Amino acid sequence: MNKKMVIRILGVVMGLEAALLMVPFIVGIIYNEPSTVHFLYASIICFVLYLSLSRIQVTKKVIYAKEGFVITSLAWIFMSLLGALPLYSSGAIPSYIDAVFEIVSGFTTTGSSILTSVEDLPHCMIFWRSFTHWIGGMGVLVFILSVVKLQGDDHNMHLMRAESPGPIVGKLVPKIRNTASLLYGIYTFMTVLLIVLLAITGMPIFDAICNAFGTAGTGGFGILNAGIGQYNNVVWEVIITIFMFLFGVNFNLYFFILMWDIKGILGCEEVKWYGVITLSFIALITLNLWPYYDSFWEALRHSSFQVSSIITTTGFASTDFNLWPQFSKTLLFILMFVGACAGSTGGGVKISRWMIIIKKLRNTITKVLHPRSVKIVTLEGKAVDDDVINEVFVFFLLFMLVFFTTFIFVSLDGFDFETTIGAVAACLGNVGPGFGLTGPMGNFSAFSNLSKVILSLAMLFGRLEIFPMLITLTPKTYRRNTDY
Amino acid sequence: MNKKMVIRILGVVMGLEAALLMVPFIVGIIYNEPSTVHFLYASIICFVLYLSLSRIQVTKKVIYAKEGFVITSLAWIFMSLLGALPLYSSGAIPSYIDAVFEIVSGFTTTGSSILTSVEDLPHCMIFWRSFTHWIGGMGVLVFILSVVKLQGDDHNMHLMRAESPGPIVGKLVPKIRNTASLLYGIYTFMTVLLIVLLAITGMPIFDAICNAFGTAGTGGFGILNAGIGQYNNVVWEVIITIFMFLFGVNFNLYFFILMWDIKGILGCEEVKWYGVITLSFIALITLNLWPYYDSFWEALRHSSFQVSSIITTTGFASTDFNLWPQFSKTLLFILMFVGACAGSTGGGVKISRWMIIIKKLRNTITKVLHPRSVKIVTLEGKAVDDDVINEVFVFFLLFMLVFFTTFIFVSLDGFDFETTIGAVAACLGNVGPGFGLTGPMGNFSAFSNLSKVILSLAMLFGRLEIFPMLITLTPKTYRRNTDY
Repeated sequence: MNKKMVIRILGVVMGLEAALLMVPFIVGIIYNEPSTVHFLYASIICFVLYLSLSRIQVTKKVIYAKEGFVITSLAWIFMSLLGALPLYSSGAIPSYIDAVFEIVSGFTTTGSSILTSVEDLPHCMIFWRSFTHWIGGMGVLVFILSVVKLQGDDHNMHLMRAESPGPIVGKLVPKIRNTASLLYGIYTFMTVLLIVLLAITGMPIFDAICNAFGTAGTGGFGILNAGIGQYNNVVWEVIITIFMFLFGVNFNLYFFILMWDIKGILGCEEVKWYGVITLSFIALITLNLWPYYDSFWEALRHSSFQVSSIITTTGFASTDFNLWPQFSKTLLFILMFVGACAGSTGGGVKISRWMIIIKKLRNTITKVLHPRSVKIVTLEGKAVDDDVINEVFVFFLLFMLVFFTTFIFVSLDGFDFETTIGAVAACLGNVGPGFGLTGPMGNFSAFSNLSKVILSLAMLFGRLEIFPMLITLTPKTYRRNTDY
Repeated sequence: MNKKMVIRILGVVMGLEAALLMVPFIVGIIYNEPSTVHFLYASIICFVLYLSLSRIQVTKKVIYAKEGFVITSLAWIFMSLLGALPLYSSGAIPSYIDAVFEIVSGFTTTGSSILTSVEDLPHCMIFWRSFTHWIGGMGVLVFILSVVKLQGDDHNMHLMRAESPGPIVGKLVPKIRNTASLLYGIYTFMTVLLIVLLAITGMPIFDAICNAFGTAGTGGFGILNAGIGQYNNVVWEVIITIFMFLFGVNFNLYFFILMWDIKGILGCEEVKWYGVITLSFIALITLNLWPYYDSFWEALRHSSFQVSSIITTTGFASTDFNLWPQFSKTLLFILMFVGACAGSTGGGVKISRWMIIIKKLRNTITKVLHPRSVKIVTLEGKAVDDDVINEVFVFFLLFMLVFFTTFIFVSLDGFDFETTIGAVAACLGNVGPGFGLTGPMGNFSAFSNLSKVILSLAMLFGRLEIFPMLITLTPKTYRRNTDY
């Protein structure tokens, strides 16, 4: 383990956080909120850490996959621990564990909240919560890679791979740094576009910015107690429905559109599956809900909003889907395990993993029928290596093991079956609201501190796609003999 | 597809069922129950089918894996469809779909029931339900292989493999036929031993036989409305707890004991894991239940009975575990996915599959830490082939896909989350009782016909370990060009 290099990069991350914390500080000044000074305090702490850690002398600059995983996990954990400080020290959230839960939920773009009334918070705090979604959506290290020159391209790849969602992480352009800038460019452009659309259709600018952050990062923190539904505005719901879907698309598609690469655009197989799955679930839920709403359109409105929200793991709610019939709830529960496209800001298992799994299963059946047949799995027109298929299977199994382990711990609180399993699926899948007590009109405040810590870890496991957290928590990782 | 050979073997299966149906017929005569004549009718129908199908002229006697799967699935389906006849035609169960559900649940050793009051049935019917557990526990084709000489050993292997539980099916002795007889011998001996133990401790002989069938097949049909708990007899509970555990053990162990092969006995790695898992779950649940019961021993009694019952997928209940705290319920829910040992009469995913999965996951983590390391997965001291590991992963994924698909369909009935997901896990895992309305004191009568059919299929998918049913339901299997 190249510990010095790990510490040094963590120092750079702290520097970034120092800068990021100044944004809500400025928001607080604009709204004349004295509690905003706590953002300045936290920023100073981060800056001091930056100064002391990032200047550490490093002799051996090389990092391997292992270090990539550890750096990524620790970066996210420390960002959250420090990012929670202003909420706690200002007294906005009286318990530090609650504050950490809230900010982990923010950075991981989960959107689960322990707040019983969001509207009581000052603007700077509400802004910070939503801003963490936007930061976490595209990734912290990806951002750093896009602005700072860290090391050779090969080593940056380990960081990029550890933080980026999906089974295969490629570079869009030859250099990682340029790929990262390009991704952040597209991301920023789309976010600004969404803010403008919401603002010109009449949403107050503060709300537009916060809701856009929640949508872009597929986070889902509401800024009103009853979520997006509280506006009861169809135009905004439609705009957000479309943008949630767009942020769940593999960003490769936008790159191809930017390059006007028609072949590339048409070859985006994952996006096609994503579209078909989204539309099928909307259709099924609409038909199931129709009798419960005044009109077909009303059912379609809520169904499409909710499907788009859950498949992208955003977690916004236009209505209390906890009151829907079980068929619709089951479909939403299953969507929590589906997730959005790889290379998007969405969470979950990811469509491309399911594509690899389903294609592999299909081939296995064919193999039984034609023992001598040789069939390979392809994704986006390219053959998928056996090692990658294996990794996808391993990923899914680990995902389920983390799911069941979290389920056991959270059960200790003694809440009902639906609340417990829903909370676990919502946190691990980075969705946000679950079912039962943690439904869209509920929150996570009733859980014990142990459950809050476990669920915070589950959110990190989910956002970083299991491996980085697992490697970081394995004692073996730090044994001397693992260096070479 | 060698259709003639499939039909011929199905004919032999019908012959077996004709004989089996005579057993409850005799029970009905002993108890002087006129409705027993319906067993005779059903037996005659089976016998006619036997005579017409088993004499079909077969030119090409060879069968492949594909035919093995199809024969096995169809054998189980037809056995159930015909085995349900007496319950339906006698009016004991007024709906044929209900009767089929009940008998599928019997043969697959699930133990889920649509009956609201078992005690109202005549003895012959109660006997037949429990007897199907005993037949299904060790397998129908395994029984046929043990008494009839069908074909060459290689082809019988396909049948044996399709019906026997676990990732690797081996022969204990060089010939399949002898292996099958040996398994049935051990099975019969242990069942008789259990009957004797229950009878000499005072249980009425009819009850002893039926409960022993339910235990041996790890089935779990109760013969009293409130299950085993209704006896409120600690001695019987302890005997049944121990025997449930013993029938969940890989039968290889008993073979080694029979041969006094000490090295073999000590090498039974799966049994060790099984023991450790069982004891750990008993300990955790006992500690969780302690405050809810009068004494530690009372908590231990119910906890060990229930863990033994659920891990072996028997499904007997000594108490209404549906009322237990969520932590205990979560552990039982997870046990439904663990299952017993391969090569036992228990259902579920099986311990040996989990061993392969966990060892493979461990190796994958080691590989990240030491990229140049080469580690192989071993089971019972032997290296596990990559193809087998792959099959295990494929199995688990298919299991989860069948689980989610069934969950969607059953949700249409609109029961609550816990009832729905519990019913699906209980049926697919061949456990029997679930949670909520389908808990140990509830039953499956409230479900719609669609759900009953879907859940019956899920029980068959579970008992035959996914593949045979999947291949049988794939239209491609019957296409001409798949012959060669």
